Amino acid sequence: MKVPNDISKSVIGRLPRYYRFLGELLKNDVNRISSKDLAEKMGLTASQIRQDLNCFGGFGQQGYGYNVPELRAKLAEILGLDKPYTAVLIGAGNLGRAVAGHMTFEDKGFRLTGIFDVDPLYKGIKIKGLPILPDSQLDEFCRDNPPDMAVLCVPAEAAAAVVDQLVACGVKNFWNFSHYDIKRAYPNVNVENVHLNDSLMMLTYQIKNRRESDT
Amino acid sequence: MKVPNDISKSVIGRLPRYYRFLGELLKNDVNRISSKDLAEKMGLTASQIRQDLNCFGGFGQQGYGYNVPELRAKLAEILGLDKPYTAVLIGAGNLGRAVAGHMTFEDKGFRLTGIFDVDPLYKGIKIKGLPILPDSQLDEFCRDNPPDMAVLCVPAEAAAAVVDQLVACGVKNFWNFSHYDIKRAYPNVNVENVHLNDSLMMLTYQIKNRRESDT
Repeated sequence: MKVPNDISKSVIGRLPRYYRFLGELLKNDVNRISSKDLAEKMGLTASQIRQDLNCFGGFGQQGYGYNVPELRAKLAEILGLDKPYTAVLIGAGNLGRAVAGHMTFEDKGFRLTGIFDVDPLYKGIKIKGLPILPDSQLDEFCRDNPPDMAVLCVPAEAAAAVVDQLVACGVKNFWNFSHYDIKRAYPNVNVENVHLNDSLMMLTYQIKNRRESDT
Repeated sequence: MKVPNDISKSVIGRLPRYYRFLGELLKNDVNRISSKDLAEKMGLTASQIRQDLNCFGGFGQQGYGYNVPELRAKLAEILGLDKPYTAVLIGAGNLGRAVAGHMTFEDKGFRLTGIFDVDPLYKGIKIKGLPILPDSQLDEFCRDNPPDMAVLCVPAEAAAAVVDQLVACGVKNFWNFSHYDIKRAYPNVNVENVHLNDSLMMLTYQIKNRRESDT
């Protein structure tokens, strides 16, 4: 399926949420749902759901609603989840371990193939069966096992050098927890940044408004 | 400053990013910037920036641009970052430690006051100077030191019980990493959910589209 180029970022940004909710429905053996019921569950309006999904051709049938497994499979395809990915993890600190351990890599077709850290203290330690390797082995590893993506869990000040190294090894896709602006250095790679503090600020925004409306 | 009620979620969602970029500018001693230059740095259009900020009254001056420290202080106020918050962390596993360690709690006026975990293995261990306490002490702790928010880093299946407990203790604000739907159980509390997998899917979306346009 070819995804149109002109879809807005906000619509794309809602797709993982649709995918997640449809997964929950499936888990509860719900195989069919109206846009109204889906909207209610997700805190959206039915018309927004229809509009969003129409960007990709629309998948509902008037009077029937959505076929949950079918719609979920379509969304998986659109989101690129219909093929497997390999990933290297850079940075085996708490965040790296959390990402390696808590993310359901395998479920979604992701496979962690290598874990790297500069800290010699980690020598001999394994995470999910993989030994933590020193950064000095990164080049060779990426040459022998080109990863589809790198997960960057290093401090911002360490990120520039390792990104240079990874890009030189041919890595084009980054899941970036490092607060280093990869896109500014390499505009042509794919980057998804995770800024946890942004999310925390969305909470304080809610708290602030609630407090003020309470008084 | 009273924030209007009718501001769209997408505008609000962009505020932390503005705040972050303005912080970087300040770090580099940039005290004044045009909407055009700010737009270029952020990958937005100047008119979008003006529109976004106009929702809150607008802070630029024709022909001058934005005063960076002033605008950043205003955004901090809007985002509720102009007052301190206390937080308890529930779950001292890798994710909880990452959140406790990597987040700049203190910088932003956050102070971690208590860390709790059910695992007796953690007894006697400290994180950032705080002892990890057993869940059995949570009620008493929250009564004696009512936290402004709880950071939930427990598995989804453990979350329901601890959320019940926290809400009963008067906690109204949750930064939720647990994949448990707090809002469904308690519609009136403030919740900000972190779904790391959603972000990973945004990366696979990019990879998928790039691959297809390459062929």
